[in-house]
Amino acid sequence: MQLFIGNKNYSTWSLRAWYLMSKFNVIFTEKQLVLDTPEFYETLKNSFSVQKVPALVDGDLQVWDSLAICEYINDAYLSNAAWPTDSAQRAIARSLSAEMHSSFIALRNEMPMNIRATRNIDLSDAAKKDLARIDEIFSAQQTRYPNGWLFGQFSIADAMFAPVVLRLKTYQISLSALAQQYCDKVMACPILQRWINESMSETDIVASDEAGVDVININ
Amino acid sequence: MQLFIGNKNYSTWSLRAWYLMSKFNVIFTEKQLVLDTPEFYETLKNSFSVQKVPALVDGDLQVWDSLAICEYINDAYLSNAAWPTDSAQRAIARSLSAEMHSSFIALRNEMPMNIRATRNIDLSDAAKKDLARIDEIFSAQQTRYPNGWLFGQFSIADAMFAPVVLRLKTYQISLSALAQQYCDKVMACPILQRWINESMSETDIVASDEAGVDVININ
Repeated sequence: MQLFIGNKNYSTWSLRAWYLMSKFNVIFTEKQLVLDTPEFYETLKNSFSVQKVPALVDGDLQVWDSLAICEYINDAYLSNAAWPTDSAQRAIARSLSAEMHSSFIALRNEMPMNIRATRNIDLSDAAKKDLARIDEIFSAQQTRYPNGWLFGQFSIADAMFAPVVLRLKTYQISLSALAQQYCDKVMACPILQRWINESMSETDIVASDEAGVDVININ
Repeated sequence: MQLFIGNKNYSTWSLRAWYLMSKFNVIFTEKQLVLDTPEFYETLKNSFSVQKVPALVDGDLQVWDSLAICEYINDAYLSNAAWPTDSAQRAIARSLSAEMHSSFIALRNEMPMNIRATRNIDLSDAAKKDLARIDEIFSAQQTRYPNGWLFGQFSIADAMFAPVVLRLKTYQISLSALAQQYCDKVMACPILQRWINESMSETDIVASDEAGVDVININ
């Protein structure tokens, strides 16, 4: 099984699928393509119907989109262990994951993931509203599962929100104590630390993701 | 079980959950709120953690987001009958549904769903690219399942793409023969016709969804 991903420093959607698979010890080969290069588009064009990462190849099957890959891995390899076992909790975990999947547009536009950077930027009211909702989600779930993952055990929901946790650090966002407690737990995860360490050694620059700097020189 | 929805003429996300539940004969009470009114926000604020439709109430449980509601109904009420039974086909159906859930931004911005209207507008290159991808998806699936739903039997994927089919009609988009064949099948569905007929009798106007007209007078 091969997982095609983009730059670890920038590619939020890649991180989600990689994190879920790595955390559950699913065996796969990682194929990294540098975002926005001719090789990136050429490789995907030759092999995939959709020119986006992450993309999973499992035998003859191609699966794309971070959430669909997570659902497929859960379904085909994990006997549903990647969602909460309780039906109601599973529904809420899927609601939060879907909310992350389609919403938070201002946050995503204004605070692109950029793991190796530290930034201090002015945010729009829409982005601040997105951040308040993130804080509300993290703190509510920490109240339900103290010092736990969003639903106690690690689930697809944590993989879906991991890029936001990294954005909060890059843009130095202040959170409520409970929301910060969740972020600290995520940041302490050795699997996520592996991704972070690997992102630090990347040198490619995607200009459109370098919000808050005029000069593109991050080293 | 109660499903809160917005205007049938405009609310794409509401249609998806309503269509899936109605098509599978799931018993629910429909609670309609007129979009962008004080009553809309007041009702959702008093009852829900997220102020968006669709929102499902099942006993003590609240589920939100069109895709998460479809997954919950499939999981809790339909013994997984709302996805293809084959694991690989299910993965592709989820990939397409997730692609619809998070992409096609230009198409969604420039061609808001407006069932009772007929429009002729100029589209950006990005929207044309989105339309080409829609055509590719519909025609590829019609080739695999001639005269069938996207995966032969009706599935969540069809519910996710139904609003696009209605947009194609409103904005008079020309399609390949196979893609049009799928659209014709969707439009002939009696359950979808029920939603369409009910949208026709609505009179509320959401100005931001009235693309392509300067004067807001659609009757």
